[in-house]
Amino acid sequence: MIILGLDPGLGTTGWGLIRAEGNRLSHLANGQLKTNASTPLPERLANLAAQLEALLAEYRPDAAAVEEVFVNKNPQSTLKLGQARGVALMCAARSGIAVGEYSPSIVKKAVVGTGGAEKAQVHAMVGRLLPGASIAGPDAADALAVAITHAHHLASKRAGITR
Amino acid sequence: MIILGLDPGLGTTGWGLIRAEGNRLSHLANGQLKTNASTPLPERLANLAAQLEALLAEYRPDAAAVEEVFVNKNPQSTLKLGQARGVALMCAARSGIAVGEYSPSIVKKAVVGTGGAEKAQVHAMVGRLLPGASIAGPDAADALAVAITHAHHLASKRAGITR
Repeated sequence: MIILGLDPGLGTTGWGLIRAEGNRLSHLANGQLKTNASTPLPERLANLAAQLEALLAEYRPDAAAVEEVFVNKNPQSTLKLGQARGVALMCAARSGIAVGEYSPSIVKKAVVGTGGAEKAQVHAMVGRLLPGASIAGPDAADALAVAITHAHHLASKRAGITR
Repeated sequence: MIILGLDPGLGTTGWGLIRAEGNRLSHLANGQLKTNASTPLPERLANLAAQLEALLAEYRPDAAAVEEVFVNKNPQSTLKLGQARGVALMCAARSGIAVGEYSPSIVKKAVVGTGGAEKAQVHAMVGRLLPGASIAGPDAADALAVAITHAHHLASKRAGITR
């Protein structure tokens, strides 16, 4: 199956696609979608939706996953993030796929083995778990990390293991 | 011209449509869109988008308006609101109309005449400014209030007045 990981943001949305066959994972594609900060907010959100829809139509993933939001201390940032996240979740749902949500510590545990891992460790492990992947940037790495987490979760569920 | 006011929310999104001809305003329709709290968030957002798109297709407004967000003290509420608001703004932008944003005090000033008015006064004045309107609830009243504000703003712009 093909899993799409997303790291939504108004300025940059990271995305990563992996293929999961049993316990084997392989990298398909990743990237970072940008919106133009000089255009009005509604247009930026419409542009983000159009880019996500193109991605969903091209790769037709079977499932999607996002990180649960680590609520920001700055309420204006939380609002901005929420607006982009709402559009991303809606696009996934519209394409008919379910979206898994994982806390940052679950993602770290799935990728590095410990819930308290540093971001840099997570990014390094994503590169190791998906050999050959050229990663577009930190947001794409985060998106791949949550896709990997979802793959582990689905594999554990199939095996009847609760993590 | 037809103006759509929106008061986005994940559980309830108020909407109100008015017709503005010069300085004359009249009520067209209003209501409150609901999403089912027992379904997953991405589906709720997709459902909200579908309801908004149906509304936009039926009434073909020429412009839309929303209140600027009064950032909530509870960050989880801000995130939820942001997610619904992102979907609402995106739907408006996709239908090809610009979205005006007004602060709560500008809305109060436009509707009641003073920026410090109470909610109840705003709702009462909305009813008086749009005689014959049967208002679906407080969120629909807020949506009509921001539509009225947008109409005033556009009329002032035409008249070369800055408010």
